[in-house]
Amino acid sequence: MNLQVIKIGGNVIDNPEELKSFLQAFASVQGPKILVHGGGKLATRMAEKLGVATEMINGRRVTSPEMLDIAVMMYAGLLNKQIVGLLQKSGCDAAGVCGADGHCVTSVKRSPEPINYGQVGDVTGINTRFFSALFEIGVTPVVCAITADLSGQLLNTNADSVASAIAKGMSYEYDTSLIYCFEKSGVMGNVDDESTLIQRLTPTLAHDLIENGTIQGGMIPKVTNALDIVVNTPVKSVIIKSSRNLLNDFGTLIEND
Amino acid sequence: MNLQVIKIGGNVIDNPEELKSFLQAFASVQGPKILVHGGGKLATRMAEKLGVATEMINGRRVTSPEMLDIAVMMYAGLLNKQIVGLLQKSGCDAAGVCGADGHCVTSVKRSPEPINYGQVGDVTGINTRFFSALFEIGVTPVVCAITADLSGQLLNTNADSVASAIAKGMSYEYDTSLIYCFEKSGVMGNVDDESTLIQRLTPTLAHDLIENGTIQGGMIPKVTNALDIVVNTPVKSVIIKSSRNLLNDFGTLIEND
Repeated sequence: MNLQVIKIGGNVIDNPEELKSFLQAFASVQGPKILVHGGGKLATRMAEKLGVATEMINGRRVTSPEMLDIAVMMYAGLLNKQIVGLLQKSGCDAAGVCGADGHCVTSVKRSPEPINYGQVGDVTGINTRFFSALFEIGVTPVVCAITADLSGQLLNTNADSVASAIAKGMSYEYDTSLIYCFEKSGVMGNVDDESTLIQRLTPTLAHDLIENGTIQGGMIPKVTNALDIVVNTPVKSVIIKSSRNLLNDFGTLIEND
Repeated sequence: MNLQVIKIGGNVIDNPEELKSFLQAFASVQGPKILVHGGGKLATRMAEKLGVATEMINGRRVTSPEMLDIAVMMYAGLLNKQIVGLLQKSGCDAAGVCGADGHCVTSVKRSPEPINYGQVGDVTGINTRFFSALFEIGVTPVVCAITADLSGQLLNTNADSVASAIAKGMSYEYDTSLIYCFEKSGVMGNVDDESTLIQRLTPTLAHDLIENGTIQGGMIPKVTNALDIVVNTPVKSVIIKSSRNLLNDFGTLIEND
C-alpha cells in the first residue's frame, strides 16, 4: 500500500492563511498519510511573552527545561490540536500526537559533549504498529517534533529528522514517499528563477550538480539527506516542493538511479 | 472484557508528588484502562502570567478564545504529555489525546443563552473504535478535557462529563467501571471522619441517605450522577474514592440494586 509522509515547517505554520489552505489540500490527499509539523516561531514568541531567555550557542537554540515546557505547550498542545481541528473541518479525521505517545517516535538525549544543546533528542526509531493502528480505523496521524526517550523524558527534536525516521520505518511495510514542503518550489539551478527547477534528481546527477556548483548552500544537506534515504532504505522517493504545490507535480523528485 | 475508566482532577494534578505516585499506581492497574484528567490550576496560572483576564459569571469561569488557547496549551499540551512521560517511565505505554483526536470525544458548543460561558462544549458522544484500536496495540489512552465539535472547533469541557461519557460509550462493548478519584475517601456520613465512609451505595439506599441528610452538599450531584449512570447504562459500577487509594478497596462503590 502507498503511504505519503508529508512534512511542513515554519514558513507555513507562521502564516495562518497559508496553513489553512495547505491543510485543505492535505485533507484531500488520498490513501494513508502522516503529517509531520515543525513549530515555527510560536515557542520563541511565547518565551518572549513569558520572559524566558532564549540561549544560543553557535547560532543554534539551546533547549533549557523551561524552553522545553514551552515547546511542549505550543507544538504538542496548541499548534498540534489546531491542525487537527482544521483537518477535521476539511473532512480528514486526524489524531495529533507527539513522539512520546505510544512510543511512536523514540529518541535519545543528545550528548552534552562537545556542545550542550539541552533537552534535545535524536531520533532512534518509530513504532510502526501505532501508525498502522490509526490507519486501520481511518485516522490520519499528525505528529509534532516533541519526542521522548524510553524513560519518558520529553525532548525537543528536529522535525525533518522526525519525518525521515517515520518514512524510513514505515517503508518496510508500505510503499512510502517522503514529501518535504518548504518555501521554495524545489531544488533550483537559480533560486530566484522557477524555470530552473530540477524536476528529477538521482544520486549520479545530484553528485554532478553539487560538484559543478549548480546545487549549493543550504540545499546541499537537504539533497544529500534525501539521497541517503532513497539509496539506503526502501523509501521510493523524496520530494522537495513548495507547500502551495502539494496537489500538483511541481517540485523536485529524488529517487534512486 | 473489563475496562476501567479512571478520572483525576485538580487536587492530584496541582501536586507534583501526588501526581507522580498516583501515576505509578495507575501504571500497575491490570487490563484495559483509560485515564481522564482535568486541568487543575495550570491554565489560570498561565493566564495570570500572560495577563489574560479570567472572566467569571455566577462564580463560573468564562472560556474566552484567549482562555481556550491557554487551556489547549496547558491541558492538551504540557500536562497531557507530562502524564504520558511519567506513565511510560512506570512501564505503562500511554498515548495522550484530546477529544478532537480521532473524534474520540465529540461535543457541541453550549448555547450562549441564558448565560454565555464562551468556548465551552457539552459532550455528545465518543468514538469507541479509537479507544479499542489503542487497546489492541497495548496502548493506554490518556484523555484531557478539551473536545471538539464535528466541525473541528476546539471546546473546553468538564472532565467529569468526559469521563462519564467515555464510560457510558465503552460499556456497550466492555464490562466498564468508572472511578472518580478526588480529595476525599469517598461518600461519608461525616466528611471529617473516615470511619463514616459509606462503602456501598445502591439507588434505594442513596435516596434514603439524601432524604435523611446523611449525604449532603456537593456530594449530592456526584451521587445522583453516579446513580444515573449505573441505572441507565450498562456501566457496572461507579467508584468514588481518594486518588491515594486507587489500588485498594477503600472508597464508595455505587451499583444498581
